[in-house]
Amino acid sequence: MKRLSLVALAVAGVATALPAAAQFAKPEDAVKYRKAAFTVMAAHFGRVGAMVQGRVPFDAAAAQANLEVANTMAKLPFTAFGPGTDAGDTRAKPNIWSDNAKFTAAANKMVEEMGKLNTAAKSGNLDQIKAAFGPVGGTCKACHDDFRKE
Amino acid sequence: MKRLSLVALAVAGVATALPAAAQFAKPEDAVKYRKAAFTVMAAHFGRVGAMVQGRVPFDAAAAQANLEVANTMAKLPFTAFGPGTDAGDTRAKPNIWSDNAKFTAAANKMVEEMGKLNTAAKSGNLDQIKAAFGPVGGTCKACHDDFRKE
Repeated sequence: MKRLSLVALAVAGVATALPAAAQFAKPEDAVKYRKAAFTVMAAHFGRVGAMVQGRVPFDAAAAQANLEVANTMAKLPFTAFGPGTDAGDTRAKPNIWSDNAKFTAAANKMVEEMGKLNTAAKSGNLDQIKAAFGPVGGTCKACHDDFRKE
Repeated sequence: MKRLSLVALAVAGVATALPAAAQFAKPEDAVKYRKAAFTVMAAHFGRVGAMVQGRVPFDAAAAQANLEVANTMAKLPFTAFGPGTDAGDTRAKPNIWSDNAKFTAAANKMVEEMGKLNTAAKSGNLDQIKAAFGPVGGTCKACHDDFRKE
């Protein structure tokens, strides 16, 4: 319990005013919530990815709007990995809880890199967005590799 | 197709810079996305509801942070009701598409009332939040009654 509270606090530190404590009536609500937050984040991040990879034309305003949403979402899921949320309809690996310091560091790194990407998007400059995009993708992959079941 | 494009544009008008067109590789991606956006919105709206109903102590900063997220989320799902997204793992009723003007009006009303609630939250005044909370809840219920299967 104590370790998980510290995780929530650490992530909430990044997320500033968002409430630190998980506020879910049931563990399955937390699982559903965190998956939903990741889903929305991935959709908006992916739209910018399509621009970065040249699959769709670069649209500075759309990139900015999408990354603003992605950046808001990035801060949300990590309040929802509390006690009892390791079971049910989730691909979360047990080491999220058994090696929690590493998970928290990985989560904080993603939030940090997403913040940098969001700042880059405000420049309206595709090269700056490209430079900041890769590191975010790296944090997604690293966390999935280590903490998510196939 | 044409009617749905107009819906997307109308809602995007409320959502300002967010891209009007749905950007989903597959219809099921759109369904998953809109459900996720509603899930995140409901979680944060619900936390403020607990304060409004006196089930948890009022915390002005938390209310503001939660409604900022809810307000961001409110604008998202309605880009994901495009053609072909009436099937699959969804409780969306067919009249979303057959009576689309009514659905769009209901969606816009929710976004509008959520915006007012978000503004009220910035006051830090619980009475103002209470006054603006009910109308949002009313738009949730109205839309669920009319456009969502049990």
